[in-house]
Amino acid sequence: MEPGTARIAVDLLGGDDAPAVVVDGALRALRADPDLHLLLVGPSEVAGGLVDVLTPEQRSRVTVRQVRHAVTMADQPIRAPRAATTIRAAVAAVAEGTAGAVVSAGSTGATVAAAALGLGRWPDVRRPALVATLPAVAGPVVLLDVGGSLEHRSTTLARHAVLGSAYAAVAHSITSPRVGLLSVGTEPGKGDRLRRAADPLLAALSLPCDGRYVGLVEGYDVAIGERADVVVTDGFTGNVLLKAIEGAYAMAGGPPTSGGVPRAAALLGVAGTVVVCHGAAGGEDVASGIALAAHLWRRDATARVAALLAAGRPADTSDRTTHTEVIP
Amino acid sequence: MEPGTARIAVDLLGGDDAPAVVVDGALRALRADPDLHLLLVGPSEVAGGLVDVLTPEQRSRVTVRQVRHAVTMADQPIRAPRAATTIRAAVAAVAEGTAGAVVSAGSTGATVAAAALGLGRWPDVRRPALVATLPAVAGPVVLLDVGGSLEHRSTTLARHAVLGSAYAAVAHSITSPRVGLLSVGTEPGKGDRLRRAADPLLAALSLPCDGRYVGLVEGYDVAIGERADVVVTDGFTGNVLLKAIEGAYAMAGGPPTSGGVPRAAALLGVAGTVVVCHGAAGGEDVASGIALAAHLWRRDATARVAALLAAGRPADTSDRTTHTEVIP
Repeated sequence: MEPGTARIAVDLLGGDDAPAVVVDGALRALRADPDLHLLLVGPSEVAGGLVDVLTPEQRSRVTVRQVRHAVTMADQPIRAPRAATTIRAAVAAVAEGTAGAVVSAGSTGATVAAAALGLGRWPDVRRPALVATLPAVAGPVVLLDVGGSLEHRSTTLARHAVLGSAYAAVAHSITSPRVGLLSVGTEPGKGDRLRRAADPLLAALSLPCDGRYVGLVEGYDVAIGERADVVVTDGFTGNVLLKAIEGAYAMAGGPPTSGGVPRAAALLGVAGTVVVCHGAAGGEDVASGIALAAHLWRRDATARVAALLAAGRPADTSDRTTHTEVIP
Repeated sequence: MEPGTARIAVDLLGGDDAPAVVVDGALRALRADPDLHLLLVGPSEVAGGLVDVLTPEQRSRVTVRQVRHAVTMADQPIRAPRAATTIRAAVAAVAEGTAGAVVSAGSTGATVAAAALGLGRWPDVRRPALVATLPAVAGPVVLLDVGGSLEHRSTTLARHAVLGSAYAAVAHSITSPRVGLLSVGTEPGKGDRLRRAADPLLAALSLPCDGRYVGLVEGYDVAIGERADVVVTDGFTGNVLLKAIEGAYAMAGGPPTSGGVPRAAALLGVAGTVVVCHGAAGGEDVASGIALAAHLWRRDATARVAALLAAGRPADTSDRTTHTEVIP
């Protein structure tokens, strides 16, 4: 545990099984981390149910912001920031400095939209990335994007390679991160059009923190981690991959001793610390998401990654959208 | 084991570790299946090395076709059919009726190109699909495409849904196969542009063998198999997914008791039975590929799937390319 009081805003109404699992996760997190303060964002009766079971010491570390409305999974993501929803209010708490980070198990699309609009995107990052860290034999494997956005271009993959390299160094203390591009084979030229276009872009990058591009890697490498510390892919592929590995561990009788598939991921590319939990997260998953948010806040990870990005910003890694492209 | 003498052409020079693992796989297959005949396609000294260790009875079930050249992984796929390569000769043996099926662990691209040009594609199937069958708790899960082609359109996904439904019934005796479309969530509308376009197309299909479309499924469902018997995705995603599940099983200490990830897949969409093994296949994997080819031949699977396709061919499931589209 890094020192420092972390103040985390928690979206009580985000998630398939909210608020029960979020309340459970918040309780677990408060018990596990004595330097954790939570801003509970949701209906007062839900927050009150949690506060009632806390010790007086724990209660002193909890604040409530009353918000009655959730974004439902069926809502269009873009609606969330326009309504007085829990995710919007939780993001606003980060924007105004009341909280250091926000955690939600609600719709990823709604959270990304609320974060992008409420906190602002970093310069040159058109598409924020969701970053998941898998525990592999040789150490953590940083996988991005796992669903921050679903439509990617080669320039986005290049930008995310830079983000991933910086994140691996800042959040996980990986020195000289090896960065690979996920494809269907390791020989140069393997892959679809997107990968064939991205491969030379990634090879030409100057990666922060002495990161080095190791070329194409395969699905196998995401779970094993021997060939790369950072694996870059589009958000669609990353999302289905992560869930497939989770299913495989369930089939195999449980995750390896090094740890299972994370059900919380950091959103990189917005000016604030945002952690997204799996919609089907349980209490333990929400607690691990809060712990990740506290860890990132204590390392000042968001600002440090942003600074690394700004310091080494070559023109060819921008994924800004031109007027000829349509973003859905 | 289904009855019937199966004659399988084996590409001795296909695979990262060819010819050693192919020779090993052929030997294992001959020992395991007394009704198996092999046509060994490759240099005579390689085939001779195998024949030398066979019993007289086994030798009576082996024929050799002398071909000296392999397609290497670095070759452009399209070159293979134009040269006198082992894969071209093995496919020709199927086209002329000397063999009932072909097995290769060589470059997938080269095998698909050789098969499409040497055997011809089925009407309305512009992009053949590689089909892998994963053993799940509730029964087999048919996953396609796992790399037959890497660029897909929504009409290709719809066509592959039909192929997968027919294949599940014919090859695995699955009645009323449940067909799902792989995406990042199960709610309608989840996914990238390709999935959002494909979902209504799949919902409108009349699937063979009483197949029924169950909507969007997630990566988890590919390994677990509770929600769908057939999972449709593009060849890029399917390939990385399959290898990620393989890596996860390796991380978890081994595959589940129901079985691991297959390293052999059937190619659907060409007028002949073609089995592609993983480039890094071992002897056991090659033997399982030969067994799959024999199984499909004995069930007359290719012709039966083609007949089901032809019988229920609605105009909207064609994935023929129009003159406005470019195929790489």
